[in-house]
Amino acid sequence: MTIQPFGMRLAGISSYAPPQVWSNEKVAARLRLARIQRNAQLRQERGHGLTPDEAREFATSDRWVRRFIGFGERRFSAEGQGAIDLATLAGRRLLESTGTAPADVDGILFASVTHSYLYSPPDAALLQEALGIPILQGGLPREMKGADVSLACSSWVAAVMLAYALIRSGMARRIVVVGADRMSATINWRDRSFATVLGDAGTATLCEAVPAEEDWFAPERFWSWLDGRHAEIIQTPMGGSRAPLRSAEDFKEGRHLLAMDGRAVKEVLVPFIGGPGIAAALGKAGWKLDQLDLVALHEANLMLNEMIIAEWKKGGFRGQVLTAGGRFGNTTSASVPLALSLNADALTVGRRFGLFGFGGGLSASIAFGIVRHPMVITADVG
Amino acid sequence: MTIQPFGMRLAGISSYAPPQVWSNEKVAARLRLARIQRNAQLRQERGHGLTPDEAREFATSDRWVRRFIGFGERRFSAEGQGAIDLATLAGRRLLESTGTAPADVDGILFASVTHSYLYSPPDAALLQEALGIPILQGGLPREMKGADVSLACSSWVAAVMLAYALIRSGMARRIVVVGADRMSATINWRDRSFATVLGDAGTATLCEAVPAEEDWFAPERFWSWLDGRHAEIIQTPMGGSRAPLRSAEDFKEGRHLLAMDGRAVKEVLVPFIGGPGIAAALGKAGWKLDQLDLVALHEANLMLNEMIIAEWKKGGFRGQVLTAGGRFGNTTSASVPLALSLNADALTVGRRFGLFGFGGGLSASIAFGIVRHPMVITADVG
Repeated sequence: MTIQPFGMRLAGISSYAPPQVWSNEKVAARLRLARIQRNAQLRQERGHGLTPDEAREFATSDRWVRRFIGFGERRFSAEGQGAIDLATLAGRRLLESTGTAPADVDGILFASVTHSYLYSPPDAALLQEALGIPILQGGLPREMKGADVSLACSSWVAAVMLAYALIRSGMARRIVVVGADRMSATINWRDRSFATVLGDAGTATLCEAVPAEEDWFAPERFWSWLDGRHAEIIQTPMGGSRAPLRSAEDFKEGRHLLAMDGRAVKEVLVPFIGGPGIAAALGKAGWKLDQLDLVALHEANLMLNEMIIAEWKKGGFRGQVLTAGGRFGNTTSASVPLALSLNADALTVGRRFGLFGFGGGLSASIAFGIVRHPMVITADVG
Repeated sequence: MTIQPFGMRLAGISSYAPPQVWSNEKVAARLRLARIQRNAQLRQERGHGLTPDEAREFATSDRWVRRFIGFGERRFSAEGQGAIDLATLAGRRLLESTGTAPADVDGILFASVTHSYLYSPPDAALLQEALGIPILQGGLPREMKGADVSLACSSWVAAVMLAYALIRSGMARRIVVVGADRMSATINWRDRSFATVLGDAGTATLCEAVPAEEDWFAPERFWSWLDGRHAEIIQTPMGGSRAPLRSAEDFKEGRHLLAMDGRAVKEVLVPFIGGPGIAAALGKAGWKLDQLDLVALHEANLMLNEMIIAEWKKGGFRGQVLTAGGRFGNTTSASVPLALSLNADALTVGRRFGLFGFGGGLSASIAFGIVRHPMVITADVG
């Protein structure tokens, strides 16, 4: 038994960033306010305020963030605006700009770690409705594939891989892959480590079937990695099923908010992606570092990414690095497609690219491809 | 260009239910306690206790639950036991019983709505570590595909579909598909609608590549559906990114806990799955109702499922219905594989089966297949 497989192209990418800008100074001021509040609270509770070590967790500055993270500002959502709302604005623009009728979409993979609702409803179903994708066809219910997909900062590339599997096997023809996160909702303002980096954005990418001869990708051009030994270095203490919030105290202490051991991230992830991670992925694809024309790395920290790229350069990498320039923060599931959308001119036919998601878990998800058709790219980030 | 596709079999299923039994009487007593506490609180806050309408939300009995839901008892996890812990116990047993070396697993799809941790780390990475799946191969990092997959009560069948796409396209050979939920963590004890139904369980299913001629499934035997118009009928008010918890009051009022409009579920989902939903899925597969030897439906409510099956019988369904018998509650992502694991004798070679996930979103995910190889099934539910 043989079959004709399908190829996949990225027909278009649309991104949306909410207009509310938070500069580094504004973040630093918000942390100072939190420090003052915490200090007063501790004086009351235990008779003395913050120790110098404790106070340091609130201390940052524009200079420090620019120097050690490389970020200048980020965007925060408006009240009531969750991942679904960011995704909807990007998704509508994607369908309009690519001339795709809602009735032509047969799948939604919604990559996010900040689900709009806990447990239910799933964002994929909310997006079906928000994009006006019809629920009937010829009087019968219309098939619509979908799921919410999470793999920390590797979520989006993992969802592209799943979209590829569905399209390659002929199970879907036109999938909207969302990468959207409202990371501002996860910030603990008593901990500068994530407060100085996180931001909000939504993106939608149209993954479309093409003849196998025109495939941008290939099964061997996807590479993934899971390493749970280091799970605790990016971990939310409570609020999940292992340790549900049990008291108002847990909530007030911010135990349901994201925490990170920044030093461990640097010590583990940078050398991994800089060396053996990309070596394994390229080895599988049969590609070499000097063949990559373009790369987009998950933008958790531009300084760490520069260290990764410095390693790659030693191995022969000479390509262009597409970034969001530190203007949007770490937008988790949105970061890679956001960077692509901001560098539309670079994505010309014939260029070879690499997409790199990596982060919590630890996890990594890498895809290599060749641009074989013009793309329709919009960025609504004004 | 033609290729040899792969087929997929379900080589084994293992299920685990925690030993702590909650009878209907115990649930009713817990709701009574919550009513007394709430009554006292309201008297203090507003001068009078619960109105009769408000008090009704706490009222239930063994007789009522058996009559209208069909459940006798359910299991609750121990403190500190999240979805990952339920999945680990099932996953270890799966590898042992099927004789699968951890090094032979190349993918994890973790279907759950109760992620062990908010945001990070993902459960797929935790399971890699818990199952002892090696991270190196020949000195280089070993590829390991994975993601957490959520689609409310349709999560597990959706994950099986994604596993099929990965295996069919040759991107993975041996995927552990988890269906695990600690639903007890989502219960609002002031609302009988979910308190009387939810339970905890973990399952692991080995999806394995076989030659295309031995495929249990086919691309056209998967059918999915999203309908966000009815998103509000199974919805958690706060705690997601659209409406993060903002005050200790939000927490104390249980706004981060799951809520349901039971009447609407019955009015929308039962006729849909009973009629046009299965008609569309069978139409795509080219199957008829009278060809289904076995069916396993998401066990949200056995009485509603009986109404669905009564509709199917009018259309010619004569098969066997595999259930967990109302002994484990609604375990969300675990319910369908749990029912399969409890009815191992029925899953004999040659039989045609249907798997039905449906629920919040609204969403549905349906798969048809034919048992073509003996399965290794274990149920650790004592």
